[in-house]
Amino acid sequence: MTTTRADAISLGPGAEFDAIRQMSDRWGARASGLGDDAAILRVPRGDSLVVSTDTAVEGRHFKRAWLSSRQIGYRSVVAALSDLAAMAARPIGVLVAITVPDAWRGELLEIADGVGDAVDVAQTHIVGGNLSAGTELSITTTVLGAAFAPLRRSCARLDDRVYVTGQLGGPIGAVRRLLLGQMPDSFGDRFARPVPRLAEARWLVERGATAGIDISDGLIADLRHVAAASHVAIDIDDRRVPVFDGADITSALHGGDEYEILVTAPHDIDREEFQRCFGLRLSEIGRVVRAPETDVTVRGARVANAAGYDHFSH
Amino acid sequence: MTTTRADAISLGPGAEFDAIRQMSDRWGARASGLGDDAAILRVPRGDSLVVSTDTAVEGRHFKRAWLSSRQIGYRSVVAALSDLAAMAARPIGVLVAITVPDAWRGELLEIADGVGDAVDVAQTHIVGGNLSAGTELSITTTVLGAAFAPLRRSCARLDDRVYVTGQLGGPIGAVRRLLLGQMPDSFGDRFARPVPRLAEARWLVERGATAGIDISDGLIADLRHVAAASHVAIDIDDRRVPVFDGADITSALHGGDEYEILVTAPHDIDREEFQRCFGLRLSEIGRVVRAPETDVTVRGARVANAAGYDHFSH
Repeated sequence: MTTTRADAISLGPGAEFDAIRQMSDRWGARASGLGDDAAILRVPRGDSLVVSTDTAVEGRHFKRAWLSSRQIGYRSVVAALSDLAAMAARPIGVLVAITVPDAWRGELLEIADGVGDAVDVAQTHIVGGNLSAGTELSITTTVLGAAFAPLRRSCARLDDRVYVTGQLGGPIGAVRRLLLGQMPDSFGDRFARPVPRLAEARWLVERGATAGIDISDGLIADLRHVAAASHVAIDIDDRRVPVFDGADITSALHGGDEYEILVTAPHDIDREEFQRCFGLRLSEIGRVVRAPETDVTVRGARVANAAGYDHFSH
Repeated sequence: MTTTRADAISLGPGAEFDAIRQMSDRWGARASGLGDDAAILRVPRGDSLVVSTDTAVEGRHFKRAWLSSRQIGYRSVVAALSDLAAMAARPIGVLVAITVPDAWRGELLEIADGVGDAVDVAQTHIVGGNLSAGTELSITTTVLGAAFAPLRRSCARLDDRVYVTGQLGGPIGAVRRLLLGQMPDSFGDRFARPVPRLAEARWLVERGATAGIDISDGLIADLRHVAAASHVAIDIDDRRVPVFDGADITSALHGGDEYEILVTAPHDIDREEFQRCFGLRLSEIGRVVRAPETDVTVRGARVANAAGYDHFSH
């Protein structure tokens, strides 16, 4: 995609540039185009460019005791990549801006390895970034993707079916255990190693999905974003919501950081074919319904407001 | 460029979304495409996509006492836009990720106004962003641009002339005064209100500039990046370096945060025409010379290493 190879990175002297060179060495062929003022990429002819940015801050989005440095790097980048999945876009590059306190300086290459793991999973490249000193570890990832027909939140229509990938409630279950000082056991991986559902989202669009979002704020909260953007009402059947083994329905309805994909479609999507393709469950959980106002209901009943986790308030 | 208008932004409830709605209201027509998982843009057919990301952290890149909140927002975005200027790219959109401590919460709309000022100056739009709580104010700006033939650092060749826009030494002069608790007087504006040389860089490329960089680390430090990337030696004549009124030559050679543009070109560029077009000086300050190794010299003499300001070390 770019013309400068990371292994040919040419920068002057300085501590920041030394650290960038070390990270670049670690990334090898997974990084390209570093070492100029900006990266140069090509968007396939006819495609739109899809871009999103996401920040993970220590103590807000994760605690140091909960994750290895490598997992912190991985998870930060995956959260951003999941926004490309939500738009059914193919990643074409990732930029990573890291603010690193002195106490974290020794962990920088481990974090870089996690970033590398995430771009491997998404079959993309690191095309740029920034490194700053600071008092708080913070990772801002910008993802670039391409899509011929990006999936939006605003295209859900009356009578559409509502589908969700995977099983919900795992990540919040892990956080609850960690807050109690317990090992998160089987829940831990759902929290530490989420997978961006990039191929899954493109598959769903090819089979007729018309609106979509990734579940980062919680199933109900994200359904509300779709309902608000599409000016529709959505009713879901909680008995059909796929609950992660050992979790409860409340966690599945309201837990965030799932990074599963929610779509609406005007006709049936073959859930068995999806399962065969991806080894992952696809569930039909509700419908876009006729209602006097934009809202999300569970079997006709209203749900308490703002139950999704809000990193900005906590 | 995008299909969703900011004035039609549709998000569910929550403190983060309320703050985003307020910022979006403030931006008006200067923001577009907010409220989906990612922004959708078009890159002009035939052009490359040029992207860069840059972080400004309180206490590292600026001090609260030095700048108004509006200037902090402005300056952060301009620093990133300057990287597009360095590549001679036209901006097509800006993403702004802000981490805001409680003590700064009341300043958020002022910061947003400064972000708006910067996109006005660059004639572009805010197409996305992120808002997080944290303990340290931090603004990470990602800029997207388009260019048919992006200017790179790596294309300087033997005998090329070296040109620089504007006058140097102002921003570091302002910082010195501020550190002493003095008013920065005429220097202050050079520090607080830098201008991204976007049109100037495109003009220079149209007239034959082959390699370029923006001066963010300092003239000598940034010349070293060009020399390293192009595998050449550059000699400059310090008597030709344009010094900001009241500043000294050392400040002009080593002061960072200038956001002026440095280019090389194989033939003369009409400096008077440049002055007429932009009301800004263009100076020829040196040459790419034959030398046994990649280096930067001042009238043949070597310059002490790493004299540029390194935000990562300080």
